[in-house]
Amino acid sequence: MYLENITSPADVKRLSIEQLKTLSSEIRTALLGKLSECGGHCGPNLGMVEATIAMHYVFDSPTDKIVFDVSHQCYTHKMLTGRASAFLDSSRYHDVSGYTEPSESPHDNFIIGHTSTSVSLAGGLAKGRDLNGEHYNVIAVIGDGSLSGGEALEGLDWAAELDSNFIIVVNDNQMSIAENHGGLYKNLEELRLSDGTCSNNLFRAMGLDYVYVSDGNDIESLISVFSKVKDVNHPVVVHINTLKGKGYLPAEQDKETWHWSMPFDIATGKLKNEFIGEDYNDLTALHLMELMKRDPKVCAITAGTPGIWGWTPQRREEAGKQFIDVGIAEEHAIALASGIAKAGGKPVAGICSSFIQRTYDQMSQDLCINDSPATILVLWASLASMTDVTHLCHFDIPLLSGIPNLVFLAPTNRDEYLAMLDWSVSYTSHPVAIRVPVGAVKSADRPVATDYSDLNKYEMVHRGKDVAILALGNFFSLGENVCRLLKEKGIDATLINPRFISGIDVEMLDSLTKDHKVVVTLEDGALEGGFGEKIARYLGNTDLKTLCYGAKKQFADRYSVAEFFAENRLVDSMIAEDVLEIIR
Amino acid sequence: MYLENITSPADVKRLSIEQLKTLSSEIRTALLGKLSECGGHCGPNLGMVEATIAMHYVFDSPTDKIVFDVSHQCYTHKMLTGRASAFLDSSRYHDVSGYTEPSESPHDNFIIGHTSTSVSLAGGLAKGRDLNGEHYNVIAVIGDGSLSGGEALEGLDWAAELDSNFIIVVNDNQMSIAENHGGLYKNLEELRLSDGTCSNNLFRAMGLDYVYVSDGNDIESLISVFSKVKDVNHPVVVHINTLKGKGYLPAEQDKETWHWSMPFDIATGKLKNEFIGEDYNDLTALHLMELMKRDPKVCAITAGTPGIWGWTPQRREEAGKQFIDVGIAEEHAIALASGIAKAGGKPVAGICSSFIQRTYDQMSQDLCINDSPATILVLWASLASMTDVTHLCHFDIPLLSGIPNLVFLAPTNRDEYLAMLDWSVSYTSHPVAIRVPVGAVKSADRPVATDYSDLNKYEMVHRGKDVAILALGNFFSLGENVCRLLKEKGIDATLINPRFISGIDVEMLDSLTKDHKVVVTLEDGALEGGFGEKIARYLGNTDLKTLCYGAKKQFADRYSVAEFFAENRLVDSMIAEDVLEIIR
Repeated sequence: MYLENITSPADVKRLSIEQLKTLSSEIRTALLGKLSECGGHCGPNLGMVEATIAMHYVFDSPTDKIVFDVSHQCYTHKMLTGRASAFLDSSRYHDVSGYTEPSESPHDNFIIGHTSTSVSLAGGLAKGRDLNGEHYNVIAVIGDGSLSGGEALEGLDWAAELDSNFIIVVNDNQMSIAENHGGLYKNLEELRLSDGTCSNNLFRAMGLDYVYVSDGNDIESLISVFSKVKDVNHPVVVHINTLKGKGYLPAEQDKETWHWSMPFDIATGKLKNEFIGEDYNDLTALHLMELMKRDPKVCAITAGTPGIWGWTPQRREEAGKQFIDVGIAEEHAIALASGIAKAGGKPVAGICSSFIQRTYDQMSQDLCINDSPATILVLWASLASMTDVTHLCHFDIPLLSGIPNLVFLAPTNRDEYLAMLDWSVSYTSHPVAIRVPVGAVKSADRPVATDYSDLNKYEMVHRGKDVAILALGNFFSLGENVCRLLKEKGIDATLINPRFISGIDVEMLDSLTKDHKVVVTLEDGALEGGFGEKIARYLGNTDLKTLCYGAKKQFADRYSVAEFFAENRLVDSMIAEDVLEIIR
Repeated sequence: MYLENITSPADVKRLSIEQLKTLSSEIRTALLGKLSECGGHCGPNLGMVEATIAMHYVFDSPTDKIVFDVSHQCYTHKMLTGRASAFLDSSRYHDVSGYTEPSESPHDNFIIGHTSTSVSLAGGLAKGRDLNGEHYNVIAVIGDGSLSGGEALEGLDWAAELDSNFIIVVNDNQMSIAENHGGLYKNLEELRLSDGTCSNNLFRAMGLDYVYVSDGNDIESLISVFSKVKDVNHPVVVHINTLKGKGYLPAEQDKETWHWSMPFDIATGKLKNEFIGEDYNDLTALHLMELMKRDPKVCAITAGTPGIWGWTPQRREEAGKQFIDVGIAEEHAIALASGIAKAGGKPVAGICSSFIQRTYDQMSQDLCINDSPATILVLWASLASMTDVTHLCHFDIPLLSGIPNLVFLAPTNRDEYLAMLDWSVSYTSHPVAIRVPVGAVKSADRPVATDYSDLNKYEMVHRGKDVAILALGNFFSLGENVCRLLKEKGIDATLINPRFISGIDVEMLDSLTKDHKVVVTLEDGALEGGFGEKIARYLGNTDLKTLCYGAKKQFADRYSVAEFFAENRLVDSMIAEDVLEIIR
């Protein structure tokens, strides 16, 4: 076995082409071994084995710098840069992250997890190199749907002005997470069909030099082309045509399903622990399909991530023109929703909390200044959601709740969520964002409002005294538990479902001042700039004390959710303890 | 005169070509008349006179929908849609805004002021039209530097998938605010030089149909082409080659200066009230030039707006490769800064508060997760800065201050600002953002720290008792004034310069609990999610009361700064009054 003896790229350079081919098989076996146990990005890694070997064969990392877009395809890179054991030895599987991570290796230049950033980041390395008067190769790897993102296109456009070494490897696997969308992919197809020779060429039109590799899984031709562009004195695009999922038949045949997978059985391709039951993703897609059938003006918008909110290929097909995948282009998704709403349509855009971070300006300028009555579903928003630092879903409340005109809602259960969604789709006065619940689907155990037009009215679930708990969205049940614990200590706490993240129920808060001493806020997100702080400010000049619970300011990474909650005192017993300490 | 008789586009359609030419002269005279009195966007409007006339001659607004990017070139459109008097009658100059404004006219579809949004917004109108089963033309106008913005490129890429009417007019005036940057502009040049026929074509490469108009200031050819694309059944780009500033020689000759101008004398082109004296923009550019001379690793980055922080063409030339204009591409600017810093360079990116809104994800992911030690100057950040709703500079504190790893500083005077800038450029532990002071340049009247590495340590300017004023950045002098007024009432208030927007000086705040009753926070920005709320939360479970001052949640528009400050009680006497009421 070659792989277990590779401690650095120098060991790759010593192998013959035939040996490199054997190495690529070994890498695929290792990939499948780990992926089937731990889950992770299957298709992207399987497709990039040969290109990564060839890059390390030709270039001299870490002097030469390789920057992987999203870095979800960096597993082979990790194996070739001293971290093979994290893929070969199951006891060490968790030694490395699923993305590039400079703290692991000097061969990793950035922590990257969002798409479409590599050209700009690598462009910065190239410009920094030039300012320092140094000389080395800078290589940005991009593709797998990322090209359509605004930042990537800005980066490509800028790159043409750099008059020094810069190599942009476009990994064209004909896919995004789902199928590709956008006109530029037609051009990539023309380029593939013409062996890179067709007269219209997006990259050349952006002022860049261009080379095509027709088989991006052929080590020899990759080495040949990378050798030619090594030490080039200007920016050049190397367009490589790869097969996503290569070497694992299920992944080659169903590229969307195998983009990322939970642990699976290699022989059958079946998930080891398939989730059975209702989840908020399925619920959302199914409910929207019902709305679409009743009203042709209703449409759903995704930015390249249909699967994360239940939009399977079959459902997309059924929805037809009422389902719009704009490709990875979150900014466009929000502006498009604003335009559709202005034209009288009823758009519902679903964006993951982590990716809605890309759209603050579109939310503010395109949507909210124009008061376009679109619905934005903020998906997966929870401290218990994704735990990789680049995919945290912690920051959407601070990001969105201060934008004027936006009604931002936090449903606490299934029925309240669907009622809010129905109301929002028919509401025409303001844009509405809904923080879609995360976790097990719970039905309402109390009546649910159907009309939310009376803005910023909180729901008084139970009126007690001394202590009031404002338990927002996902944390409503945490609030219920705190109340239960306080009850055991003889305190009849008030329980409030705020419902509106974006406003203060002045009347209700004022009513608390008479017979309450402490107000507790609970939110399933970052504390800084969040919901609790608004309450603390409003009550700042009263005699009421405030205690705000949420995540303290930090970029947490690959954390245990239970430990994270304990560290942040997001545990019913801890909160009850804090309250008792203050009140006594 | 034709212009004064035009009450709607129907009146334009009645004129002959010769009459339209006369109309264009009348419009230019009106433009210069108003611009010379009120200031505004000169070059963009002068260049688009003929194209706007031709659009209204051919299309049927408001049934057909025209969406102007940035909408800073919509003055002719306003004149032709019933608002000519706002340009002809000086007593009515302020009847209309400088941007499209649906509340003024059904011919205006959106409130727009940021760049690069028109294709996505108009694309939404087109998609909404299709969902509704309606039929009309949708026209997006874009250009003047906006094409390089990520949202615009995302929009163009998406547009190719629309299988219905959509017309994208690319106003190619060969300029951004300053000169254009980016490879795509080389392609526009090739297209101009080849009369639109060169084989490489960015728009076709994005999957779009394409038509070229060689003289975009010739009404006849514009009418001819617009007539041809009217009612087209697929997306098409109409690339028109226009002259920015056309018809006013100073504006034709110095396009950058005349992009936007203060009131001027038409005969000489001289400003009526030229600002004489030091401002923070000049100060910044001059100081950075000094740093650059001493250290070749220092570089300045702008996203198409060099002029707003003192980077005149001459200074840019002098800085050479140490000055980087990435074009209108704010996302790329921040990612680039991160890359340069990682490569050992010392980048200083200057972005207007209003436009930094486009970069939250790049600030968070590309810069701060990677802890790249770049410096970001947040320019013009103040409630007293730009007052058009699309250009508000109110929201940068809520946006940035919650991002982990970012050190966000608020200098209170010239010397503190420059000391922070020097420190930041040499600091290598974290990214630093500096909220550059706005208003008259003030020198320090107390010693200024040179080292800010001891993070989140506030400056205790005066230790009094009972009342503490935390007066942030631009509002430090407001804090001084409040202290003075309180002194007159016998209260010796504590005055604190927080310096760090992004953190809490726990020790200092704790020390206040002993002998203080009220803590007042003053910040020159939006209250929601801002600095004061962090303080209110931290002190929420103490006996200290908090009073937070800043702008209440709203999209203010074209406000009188004095009135706005009074409405938000951002007046020393009002604040003193509030404090006295609480404390007595």
